[in-house]
Amino acid sequence: MPQPRRVRAHFFVCTNRRPDGHPLPSCGAWGSAGVFEAFTRELARRGYPAGLKVTATGCLTPCQQGPNVVVYPEGVWYAGVTPADVPELLAAHGDGAGVVERLLLPPEVRVS
Amino acid sequence: MPQPRRVRAHFFVCTNRRPDGHPLPSCGAWGSAGVFEAFTRELARRGYPAGLKVTATGCLTPCQQGPNVVVYPEGVWYAGVTPADVPELLAAHGDGAGVVERLLLPPEVRVS
Repeated sequence: MPQPRRVRAHFFVCTNRRPDGHPLPSCGAWGSAGVFEAFTRELARRGYPAGLKVTATGCLTPCQQGPNVVVYPEGVWYAGVTPADVPELLAAHGDGAGVVERLLLPPEVRVS
Repeated sequence: MPQPRRVRAHFFVCTNRRPDGHPLPSCGAWGSAGVFEAFTRELARRGYPAGLKVTATGCLTPCQQGPNVVVYPEGVWYAGVTPADVPELLAAHGDGAGVVERLLLPPEVRVS
């Protein structure tokens, strides 16, 4: 049986950085390292609450929409995230305040 | 409302590689790049089935147990994964064959 891990909001932040001159954009080129840092800083400020977690990732796929963040287990995808959005994302998924509608990845964008 | 993204098994593979001589082990030092490659190779061989996805990540936390893999939305954590385990993991989570008991991260290991 799966173990009952109590991660209620696991944020995955794409920090993929393509080389300069690459024809595709990348979340890293759009400043996603700052988004990841904002998550770690905000979690530290809150004393690392149990059940909230952030992990940096390689390419999540919707490169044109970055910086991308996906939150599991809910499976909610966000696009164009900035460091300033992080407290709102943590409140939404960590404190049960819902989702951040204005940052949702458009539903027509495929992720798999 | 969250969009209904149809990712039924999103595999996250830690490929973090610490510098040689670092006091902590790392999934990358234990060959997790090969695990990630095995996922991409196997998904390609299957023609990239919709709903299955793999992403490389930075540190997932249980460094002593690597290579680590976590599968969402189920939230099942695996430890000591090798490239040879990948077809079984894809069958378990992609084809509804359950979980791979022998690779489960021990329940006492904290992940957040």
